Amino acid sequence: LEPLTVNSRRFRDNFESLAKIGDTGDGGVHRPALGDSHLAARRWYQERIVEDGFEFITDGAGNHSARLPAKDYNAKTILLGSHLDSVPNGGRFDGALGVLAACEVLATVRDAGLDLPVHLEAIDFTDEEGTLVGLLGSRALAGQLKPEDLQNPRGGRDRLLEGLERAGLTEEGLFTARRSTDLFKAFLEMHIEQGPRLLEAGSDIGIVGTLVGIGSLEITFVGRSDHAGTTPMDSRLDAGLGAADFILEARKLVRREFSGCVCNTGRAALEPGVLNIVPARAVLGVEFRSPAEEQLEDLGLGLVRQAEKSAERYGLQILVEDLGRIPTSPCSKRVQGAFGVACRNLGLKSISMSSGAGHDTMAMARICPAGMIFIPSSGGSHSPSEFAGWKDCVNGANVLLQATLELALE
Amino acid sequence: LEPLTVNSRRFRDNFESLAKIGDTGDGGVHRPALGDSHLAARRWYQERIVEDGFEFITDGAGNHSARLPAKDYNAKTILLGSHLDSVPNGGRFDGALGVLAACEVLATVRDAGLDLPVHLEAIDFTDEEGTLVGLLGSRALAGQLKPEDLQNPRGGRDRLLEGLERAGLTEEGLFTARRSTDLFKAFLEMHIEQGPRLLEAGSDIGIVGTLVGIGSLEITFVGRSDHAGTTPMDSRLDAGLGAADFILEARKLVRREFSGCVCNTGRAALEPGVLNIVPARAVLGVEFRSPAEEQLEDLGLGLVRQAEKSAERYGLQILVEDLGRIPTSPCSKRVQGAFGVACRNLGLKSISMSSGAGHDTMAMARICPAGMIFIPSSGGSHSPSEFAGWKDCVNGANVLLQATLELALE
Repeated sequence: LEPLTVNSRRFRDNFESLAKIGDTGDGGVHRPALGDSHLAARRWYQERIVEDGFEFITDGAGNHSARLPAKDYNAKTILLGSHLDSVPNGGRFDGALGVLAACEVLATVRDAGLDLPVHLEAIDFTDEEGTLVGLLGSRALAGQLKPEDLQNPRGGRDRLLEGLERAGLTEEGLFTARRSTDLFKAFLEMHIEQGPRLLEAGSDIGIVGTLVGIGSLEITFVGRSDHAGTTPMDSRLDAGLGAADFILEARKLVRREFSGCVCNTGRAALEPGVLNIVPARAVLGVEFRSPAEEQLEDLGLGLVRQAEKSAERYGLQILVEDLGRIPTSPCSKRVQGAFGVACRNLGLKSISMSSGAGHDTMAMARICPAGMIFIPSSGGSHSPSEFAGWKDCVNGANVLLQATLELALE
Repeated sequence: LEPLTVNSRRFRDNFESLAKIGDTGDGGVHRPALGDSHLAARRWYQERIVEDGFEFITDGAGNHSARLPAKDYNAKTILLGSHLDSVPNGGRFDGALGVLAACEVLATVRDAGLDLPVHLEAIDFTDEEGTLVGLLGSRALAGQLKPEDLQNPRGGRDRLLEGLERAGLTEEGLFTARRSTDLFKAFLEMHIEQGPRLLEAGSDIGIVGTLVGIGSLEITFVGRSDHAGTTPMDSRLDAGLGAADFILEARKLVRREFSGCVCNTGRAALEPGVLNIVPARAVLGVEFRSPAEEQLEDLGLGLVRQAEKSAERYGLQILVEDLGRIPTSPCSKRVQGAFGVACRNLGLKSISMSSGAGHDTMAMARICPAGMIFIPSSGGSHSPSEFAGWKDCVNGANVLLQATLELALE
């Protein structure tokens, strides 16, 4: 008996129609959350849902869903989905593919006349990318949004208020999107990998075991400002030397002792920042990620110890400010198992991997069994050049479908 | 026969009166060029000159001088001096000491009733520090100021125009300060060292052989922006790594192969400059100095070669922009010789050294035999903590006096 599979043609037509909204002409899309093109994409999704004969539901956070109800009113829901917003000048696959794959699962189940003991819901979460507030929709739905998150949002408070108004939303309304956690049997997300590991491994599907935890630090090396002409090289306390040493040594540390982790010095400034004065201060912004909570902690401590060593090597002092920590998000073993069964049924090669990026699954994993799969992608991430082959997209949608059936019927 | 020496008491009274103008309360002064406190210092100097019975002369660039004329109207002039302006919140010794030492030389010669075959002139040059336009007064007097120097001045064009107006000067007038070069027999400047070498050597006087040439480069390392979570450490083209490697290796290069030279990475920026994106570009501002013209050239080439190596090591490209070059300024052998004779006559230990900083002597060395001496100083440079012991200040003034007599009578 062949396993049930999605309608590749319909899935692709939808994908290409959606990719026209906010098209940047270079293969990418520009759909920052609650901007005009994002709102246009949301309207398109709403029309699709209604035309396809699904229930359309929305909430106070602007999340949009297609719903295929079970006969039993009291059944639990398997929620599937991702997001339609993009970073500025982003790619057409990131998020959008996962929403359409979820929708395609519903259509395939309905077309096959299956009578499942669960409601199915295909959701588009608001502002996953954090143009205004990161994971806004999924955190609101999962009851993890806090009023203080709205006070100093990443994109600035004015832009948040403007965006909410443009979308017909209100700050108070956001909190009404919270759903009772016992409504959910599971949450499943499909997404492009945005990294090279599946292609390197020759695998079709990555089953996510954990979404990494993320730490960030501001490390300031403090030396002494001196005249860059009159002060001999050996009489200086050049804060830039400590910072440079740290950048190189932090990379070595991660490669040597923290396999599976990453760190990034993404921001750097020398002060006073003029060519004829030896830098008195070098301020670095450092981010680090690990799939294991204890390792994340150890990596953070290791980086601070390295900063101390780099400072000592050049006679400098350091100041360290913790800029915050996002804990790791382990995925449900049951959902990972269902993805594994699905891959075997479909004859697809899968590997277990962690997600280095944040996704809506992070919010959902806090309240119900949640899991996600990656399909191979190339051309980087958050870029018009991001790309996934259509066969891989269909494979992903089929795994999402089969795992949904596996979980629905267990 | 004891050599003639200056009046330490009078010199010091003048120094302390002047240090009160723009006093910042922490040992320093705040007298940015053509600001209120600088103009007050200039008025004080003018009054001193007139009260002391010297000729007062000024010019279109706002340079102020005390003049002690020779009997022979057609005699040449030995010009002595420095500057009364300071960097914002600078020290009380930088520049001011040299102007007052020059003035003290004139007073001592006059009090001793010497009838020299040269005019003596003690000058305060406008804006040596470059608050508005670097070496404004000395370059105007030496005929090296160019109209284009006034179009994009370091402090901004509006501030330049405001400053000129406050001082009763005009742009056109600046160029009238140019003097005929055959009027000068020599230019002599005394200044604090602003570095540790005299103290380390246990010397009283540094006789400057050359003022260093200064080159500056903007070096941009170009990699690729990648997601800092999904891109493994070994798959990145992190522009920050090349920049960090360059900062450390450039220092090693100078210490290993360019003795007597310095380099400084004073400015650095990573782009796009956010924690979760691997830096695609790292832009460094690098300055380097050498007392020898050919070595300056070699050092510039060596730094670019090092940048290429650092880029190659991490798979990056580089862009190099030359931000300009100030040539080395060799001092007159005759003037250096006169300083040497003066030190011997006074029983002072002297060493020959280069100046790592720029001074008005740079402009004057282009048009007449010029030279300068340093006295020991501590506490850094361009800082309220800069300090010179009074005995060293008097030694410097005596060397300036004796060298003037040596050159006048030769």
